[in-house]
Amino acid sequence: MARSCLAVILAAGDSTRMKSSVSKVLHPVAGRPMIAHVAAAVARAGISDVALVVGRDAEAVEKAAAVDDLRVSSFIQKERLGTGHAVLAAREAIARGYDDILVAYGDVPLITDGPFAAARAAVAEGHDVAVIGFHTDEPTGYGRLLVENGELVAIREEKDATDAERAVTWCNSGLMAIDGRKALALLERIGNDNAKREFYLTDIVEIARSLGGRTVAVDASEEELSGCNNRAELAHIERLWQQRRRREIMLSGVTMIAPETVFLSYDTEIGQDAVIEPNVVFGPGVTVEGGAVIHAFSHVEGAHVSAGATVGPFARLRPGAHLAEGAKVGNFCEVKKAEIGAGAKVNHLTYIGDAFVGAGSNIGAGTITCNYDGVNKFETHIGAGAFIGSNTALVAPVSVGDGAYVGSGSVITEDVPADALALGRARQVVKPERAKQIREHNLAIKAARKAKG
Amino acid sequence: MARSCLAVILAAGDSTRMKSSVSKVLHPVAGRPMIAHVAAAVARAGISDVALVVGRDAEAVEKAAAVDDLRVSSFIQKERLGTGHAVLAAREAIARGYDDILVAYGDVPLITDGPFAAARAAVAEGHDVAVIGFHTDEPTGYGRLLVENGELVAIREEKDATDAERAVTWCNSGLMAIDGRKALALLERIGNDNAKREFYLTDIVEIARSLGGRTVAVDASEEELSGCNNRAELAHIERLWQQRRRREIMLSGVTMIAPETVFLSYDTEIGQDAVIEPNVVFGPGVTVEGGAVIHAFSHVEGAHVSAGATVGPFARLRPGAHLAEGAKVGNFCEVKKAEIGAGAKVNHLTYIGDAFVGAGSNIGAGTITCNYDGVNKFETHIGAGAFIGSNTALVAPVSVGDGAYVGSGSVITEDVPADALALGRARQVVKPERAKQIREHNLAIKAARKAKG
Amino acid sequence: MARSCLAVILAAGDSTRMKSSVSKVLHPVAGRPMIAHVAAAVARAGISDVALVVGRDAEAVEKAAAVDDLRVSSFIQKERLGTGHAVLAAREAIARGYDDILVAYGDVPLITDGPFAAARAAVAEGHDVAVIGFHTDEPTGYGRLLVENGELVAIREEKDATDAERAVTWCNSGLMAIDGRKALALLERIGNDNAKREFYLTDIVEIARSLGGRTVAVDASEEELSGCNNRAELAHIERLWQQRRRREIMLSGVTMIAPETVFLSYDTEIGQDAVIEPNVVFGPGVTVEGGAVIHAFSHVEGAHVSAGATVGPFARLRPGAHLAEGAKVGNFCEVKKAEIGAGAKVNHLTYIGDAFVGAGSNIGAGTITCNYDGVNKFETHIGAGAFIGSNTALVAPVSVGDGAYVGSGSVITEDVPADALALGRARQVVKPERAKQIREHNLAIKAARKAKG
Repeated sequence: MARSCLAVILAAGDSTRMKSSVSKVLHPVAGRPMIAHVAAAVARAGISDVALVVGRDAEAVEKAAAVDDLRVSSFIQKERLGTGHAVLAAREAIARGYDDILVAYGDVPLITDGPFAAARAAVAEGHDVAVIGFHTDEPTGYGRLLVENGELVAIREEKDATDAERAVTWCNSGLMAIDGRKALALLERIGNDNAKREFYLTDIVEIARSLGGRTVAVDASEEELSGCNNRAELAHIERLWQQRRRREIMLSGVTMIAPETVFLSYDTEIGQDAVIEPNVVFGPGVTVEGGAVIHAFSHVEGAHVSAGATVGPFARLRPGAHLAEGAKVGNFCEVKKAEIGAGAKVNHLTYIGDAFVGAGSNIGAGTITCNYDGVNKFETHIGAGAFIGSNTALVAPVSVGDGAYVGSGSVITEDVPADALALGRARQVVKPERAKQIREHNLAIKAARKAKG
Repeated sequence: MARSCLAVILAAGDSTRMKSSVSKVLHPVAGRPMIAHVAAAVARAGISDVALVVGRDAEAVEKAAAVDDLRVSSFIQKERLGTGHAVLAAREAIARGYDDILVAYGDVPLITDGPFAAARAAVAEGHDVAVIGFHTDEPTGYGRLLVENGELVAIREEKDATDAERAVTWCNSGLMAIDGRKALALLERIGNDNAKREFYLTDIVEIARSLGGRTVAVDASEEELSGCNNRAELAHIERLWQQRRRREIMLSGVTMIAPETVFLSYDTEIGQDAVIEPNVVFGPGVTVEGGAVIHAFSHVEGAHVSAGATVGPFARLRPGAHLAEGAKVGNFCEVKKAEIGAGAKVNHLTYIGDAFVGAGSNIGAGTITCNYDGVNKFETHIGAGAFIGSNTALVAPVSVGDGAYVGSGSVITEDVPADALALGRARQVVKPERAKQIREHNLAIKAARKAKG
Repeated sequence: MARSCLAVILAAGDSTRMKSSVSKVLHPVAGRPMIAHVAAAVARAGISDVALVVGRDAEAVEKAAAVDDLRVSSFIQKERLGTGHAVLAAREAIARGYDDILVAYGDVPLITDGPFAAARAAVAEGHDVAVIGFHTDEPTGYGRLLVENGELVAIREEKDATDAERAVTWCNSGLMAIDGRKALALLERIGNDNAKREFYLTDIVEIARSLGGRTVAVDASEEELSGCNNRAELAHIERLWQQRRRREIMLSGVTMIAPETVFLSYDTEIGQDAVIEPNVVFGPGVTVEGGAVIHAFSHVEGAHVSAGATVGPFARLRPGAHLAEGAKVGNFCEVKKAEIGAGAKVNHLTYIGDAFVGAGSNIGAGTITCNYDGVNKFETHIGAGAFIGSNTALVAPVSVGDGAYVGSGSVITEDVPADALALGRARQVVKPERAKQIREHNLAIKAARKAKG
């Protein structure tokens, strides 16, 4: 039977260097709060209970962490007396009795489930504490993991280290798994007899060993343990996240001409043999099927793009846009909450919102579905094989039947039956030689303006 | 008299890691299939005959390789028994009798003509085989080029190398030139007496030397020999290509504010003192004359931009767009198959397709040439010095004469004579206090909707 | 009392490698000529007098350098006989009598005021010459700064250096401060008894010391001394500038999801807790208040964006755009010289120029202010709480009153009173079954075209 586990996620840091009006862990990476990334990794590691230790914005943080059916409870850390003190803010949850207690941080959004699983496995094998470490070329400032015969014998802080110990490049991340039966006893023994009068979680290793317990270190990559203390680091983490995910997607058979200019969301899915051109931004909730093409300068959010469909250049798909097979949405077009049928074309300077466009229809340049009356939204329904002339305004609610034809420049306020022609425009009037007079008139105005100064 | 040469380009690799529905060598770099880049380098080296060794997509690969008047024949490699076997798939072509046989790969699109020329020169000087090598900081995995007294004495595979040989950083690319009179004899002596039962082309060096021939290595840069086995490597090669070409263009006197955001095609030409702002994508077939400015967020393909013309921000020029001197195409405008005359302005939310716009004309915001009736395309002709008011639809075929004036919001379906005024819009009607009633009505609908739930 | 100082900025270099029709120092970095960056650093160092030594484009260079109330005089260097000769072109200004003479270059736009202040401080402490140096990992080619007991004893050119001297990594930038009372005397002693027959400014160190004076070197970063000799270097300098400024802005509490895709101007100001999405270009003159959001693919120039306002995706704000609190300008919209009131929405395919939009108004998709008659610009005034239906053309000068309602597809040429409804469109006409006939007609045309070939 699987071992039970509580993940204690520390998310109470002051993070004044973020200079932010909201808690650091709410800042998004790939369109999702940092804390949600950590929680998702916890869930992927097979853990279902989370105790959040929070400072500000408790409600929002708790909501953000509640991903993938996790059971999340949150605990306020009122005073900031160190990491050992922070974990004990969740004493009530720890005391419920779990096989393992996992301690993680809310500001390491690149973490994967691997290190969590490795640390828990080490506890399952009889270690009291399994610390997650990382190898780095620049260890200065980090606590070093001192290992003998495969056991972690100490975490040595930089200032207390000998020269030999400073040469160690395996460092402490602060994340760890603890034997759930012993966790409270060990945590409560952590003291604050040090310069800063803080309770340091890392003291738990020494305490466990002094009581005859075994401790060990497990490895994670330096990258996945990257933390975030200001907005430059936030941007750096975003970049690492994007690089990792772009690479995964490319290796799965998707072409990205300039991957460094493609911005993915945490949940973007792209099928094999799709092509993503430079400068494409994906908001949350996008699925692109194999063989679709997203041209340059496209912004796609909450949308589905079917096989063989093409988007852009310069297209915006907003939530609820659904492009069927072979549909095209192109230059300076915006589609919101609308189905664009198979092979239909929305290609120039068009706004389609709250609408249905039937298969094979052609929507002329400058077409606008007038879906808003200032208060309510209404729907437009366009049948299959219809032709909407350029510069047409379709005043919703309205429907245009299959095979109907709407003349350019029309304002359509009443339903158009199938195969009918609808026009709504004035007759053209031509006044010979009048343009000359207009020009003279305009120049006279200019002269008068100048005279006035 | 110039030596005759056949280039045998190996393009039959399985490339399963590309996870692609088409042959690897058809994937584009800078808008052109990889195989076409290699073929173009072959042509630049003064070679006119190519034998392609292909697996899948033979017809498409042959077509893609037929650049610059090359004579291309293709040969199917049915079984994959190694590079030596692959070259012999082109036995028929080799047997025609050439002074030199050049062996290249279809997936090294960054190759230049320099190494080809150097290898052929070495053969002309009396070497049987001239292998193209590259120096690298990370030689692990590559065969090392062992040189004594200027002669290549062996290609040593990693697994067979001594420590001293492993320290060699000059590596085998697999590309080579072979004396055409001896090529078939040497190739046929390659055996498959090895672990994988494959015929290795590199064995040709040892064979040539065992027969008393001379062999040598010539140098190429590591970058130009970069190969491509998955889509992450494809993106990497694209990036290297872009960096090389951007640099050439900048050094020729073109300003790129952020070159890493400018994407060029294989044939993009830009004149001195042109300025390219950030985020510009060039498709194939573009010429930008000196002194033109391409503003940010522009997408330009198959277009000519004359001196002093400006494009963007947010402009799209499609094939057949031709901007004369000083013409402007700006914000959210699309131009396709159209001449924009000297000093003419197309500046806001406009679609100009299949059209001619005369010098000095001003096209108002939101103008659309309705060039498509659902079946056919028609042309719009606008004379010089014309003024097209905003939100006008010009229903092609139609012409607007020199100096004519079209009122805003018109639908123009009949020709407008020179200097005439044309209007096609309804008279304005004002209904006092009616907006209040509309708002109340709209709010009542909202309330009713809410009541229904 | 503050010491007086003249900055001599050398800006006469030939810069043939720029391949440019204008002087190198006029090329912009972050939207501002290089020379203006150097002048601004001079001004920040508390210096108010500048002597420019120029070759071509004297007038334009002088104008560009006149920032921050600097008093700028310019001097033509007719012959190019070396840097010592160049400084003496400004003899007349130097002879005015200053406490300090600062020598700088016009093509080091990343320079900050720090090194200028440090060099002047060293002169104030009794040194005749204080040379600005930089530490580099790649010193090859630079003159090395040889220091003994804290004094600069020589600047050793590469070709004259011993092996030990070549190992020195502190290098000469050419920038320096000179004691103003001695400057002319020292400069005039510089000879041209060398291979190139040039007068080298760096000889001044040896001359000062031979006369018993003290000389010293002060430090600057390698980055801020980056020079520019071709357009690839210009792009590199732009990139360094952008990285520096982006980082400053992020550390002040601004989120940039992908800072490498955000292009700032020299004067861009962004408030805390603003969010800048990927692919945003700022022209000069922009202020973004805290809490505003600039979405992806936006181009913002000469504009003010208030707290809580949002811009983009795909928006262009041009000079004179002023967004009040909570205003929205979105998809494919352009705003020029216009106030957008609090909470007003301009969200789709709209052009607003020379206009005022009242608080809370909603501007429908495809709305265009027709502000230009081909000669003059006119204004459009829209009151608070108005509703402009989609595809409306507002022909300026025109005003729409508070709470008024304009029907979709209207052309508005006369003022609309408050709370009135205005319509300007034709009645819709429907012709049953006519679409079929049109299609048949269109297909017949196609067939006829084909027959003609």
